[in-house]
Amino acid sequence: MKIVIDGFGGDYSPDEIIKGAVLSIQKHKDLEIILTGDEKVLTDKFSELNLSMERIKLHNAPLVISNDETPTIAIKKEGTSLGEAFNILKQQDDVQALISCGSTGAILAGGFLKIGRIKGVSRPALAPFLPTRKGTNVLLIDCGANSECKPINLAHFAIMGSIYYKEINGVDSPRVGLLSNGVEEHKGSELTKETYKILKTLPINFIGNIEARDIVSGDVDVVVTDGFTGNIALKSIEGAVKLAMNEIKTAIKSSAVSMFGALFLKKAFKKVKSRMDYKKYGGSPFLGTKKLIIKSHGNSKRETICYAVDQAIECSKLGINSKFADAFANLDISGDL
Amino acid sequence: MKIVIDGFGGDYSPDEIIKGAVLSIQKHKDLEIILTGDEKVLTDKFSELNLSMERIKLHNAPLVISNDETPTIAIKKEGTSLGEAFNILKQQDDVQALISCGSTGAILAGGFLKIGRIKGVSRPALAPFLPTRKGTNVLLIDCGANSECKPINLAHFAIMGSIYYKEINGVDSPRVGLLSNGVEEHKGSELTKETYKILKTLPINFIGNIEARDIVSGDVDVVVTDGFTGNIALKSIEGAVKLAMNEIKTAIKSSAVSMFGALFLKKAFKKVKSRMDYKKYGGSPFLGTKKLIIKSHGNSKRETICYAVDQAIECSKLGINSKFADAFANLDISGDL
Repeated sequence: MKIVIDGFGGDYSPDEIIKGAVLSIQKHKDLEIILTGDEKVLTDKFSELNLSMERIKLHNAPLVISNDETPTIAIKKEGTSLGEAFNILKQQDDVQALISCGSTGAILAGGFLKIGRIKGVSRPALAPFLPTRKGTNVLLIDCGANSECKPINLAHFAIMGSIYYKEINGVDSPRVGLLSNGVEEHKGSELTKETYKILKTLPINFIGNIEARDIVSGDVDVVVTDGFTGNIALKSIEGAVKLAMNEIKTAIKSSAVSMFGALFLKKAFKKVKSRMDYKKYGGSPFLGTKKLIIKSHGNSKRETICYAVDQAIECSKLGINSKFADAFANLDISGDL
Repeated sequence: MKIVIDGFGGDYSPDEIIKGAVLSIQKHKDLEIILTGDEKVLTDKFSELNLSMERIKLHNAPLVISNDETPTIAIKKEGTSLGEAFNILKQQDDVQALISCGSTGAILAGGFLKIGRIKGVSRPALAPFLPTRKGTNVLLIDCGANSECKPINLAHFAIMGSIYYKEINGVDSPRVGLLSNGVEEHKGSELTKETYKILKTLPINFIGNIEARDIVSGDVDVVVTDGFTGNIALKSIEGAVKLAMNEIKTAIKSSAVSMFGALFLKKAFKKVKSRMDYKKYGGSPFLGTKKLIIKSHGNSKRETICYAVDQAIECSKLGINSKFADAFANLDISGDL
């Protein structure tokens, strides 16, 4: 299996990207990696860090796309580490996935413009896993690829999310919920009300509207929403977890007794931190594009790169994309789209 | 000061509502309360609980509006505890505020249909306070009154939120942020992009777009959004805090050592629980209606009722509504509305 990784995306590139690539190579015996970026810098880094380049090929791309650039313009520029990674993914049949920690906008633009959609998929979508109170995972789709959506887009997210959850978690009939501001069918925005009508007719286990407080309840497996709302939900959760952890730290530090007690809780706190750490959940796959694209968090370190590689390998082995293609080839959606 | 309270709204009515009313009466020497609901049941409860009815007047309304009813129809029915409370608020000049823990939809419908808007306010909005990582509060407006909004509505939320925050917290120039999926001006939905243009021109301290992870950062005082998105953000935060607390509990229970350590942390955990408890933040005022309406959480107990009463008294003393009226009388908004 061959994967291309953007060597210059994210806060800790290229060092942590390189280290993550080497770790992945050690873990997976039949893996080959193409690393894009300034070849001289990368070569120097490998020897400076004293790392083996076994099964790692460099592809020269001296420029870097920043977060401030207009994604659709930036992705078309020649010689960028991300742009070249997309060119390789597009042109080389044996390269099966792309991983980048760079600008989300540029990654999405690359997916839309350079790779294209699976036939029948109206809009690809970002779909990360989150932890739940019951120890399971929940898939939130879309988390930011599509700010403005139509009901048909959300219906497609539901189908992709359901297939992806089933394949990755081995759950036969994942419970699909529609994110709204009330559980009743008549609650919500115009978008959710129209979407509700379509989801009822699809070959998925649709359990109706769910409220945002229940995203992480463990009572739903796939939460369907537009990219704007999904982004708000995801980042609200991220901010709230940080708030809760912060409050605990402050409360502990406020007395000697609690600081003493906290000494016995180090392991427990570490466990919580690890459970709540989005880095453990790998990247967000961009579901619905012809080839697999994984957006990893901007502050990914080597372990996160490894998780993203694992994720790419798993998706490839499970044949997620051909399962999407089959589902959409046979799809017949009616309703007000 | 006279306040009307819906005696039969919420999970713990009427007992906890009655107890909350009595506690408030004890706290505020010049407070009078009108309690709506089945007069016989209420009278019996007072004597059963052995509570004084000093400065508390009952108003008979034997019916109760449930959460399943269509709000706009339910609020017009005769003889409901909430409907009668609204009639009293509307008809009696000296009654200054209404508090209910009942159906949010019915409370909003009552506000819109029976009380009406302050002149110039296009849409009243729900605006609760949340705790932040810096120990301050943040006001999230709108949290669910208006699922579909136009830019002009959000502009009005920004003005009301700014005035309300300033008056309640004594902060001179509260920082107003627009909730979006990116900080840059060009990021967001059509609604946020148009709203951004207007907010820049208003006499408020507009600090630009903020991402959802920063709602509780303490770097923004008033977060402006439409009611659908605000509801998603609020409930995502609620669910995530519950998730974090739950993870800590599970991690502690997983070993004897950590359970021992936790004994020394009881006080600290209690402090955190109290800080994160929305009940401490009173209810959500429904800002922009001609008279003050406070929606308290459905599972409010006596203390929460007390907080809501405190809040009503404070708003009344600060003359929030006349400050809104002044601001909107002098308002000149231009832009694509």
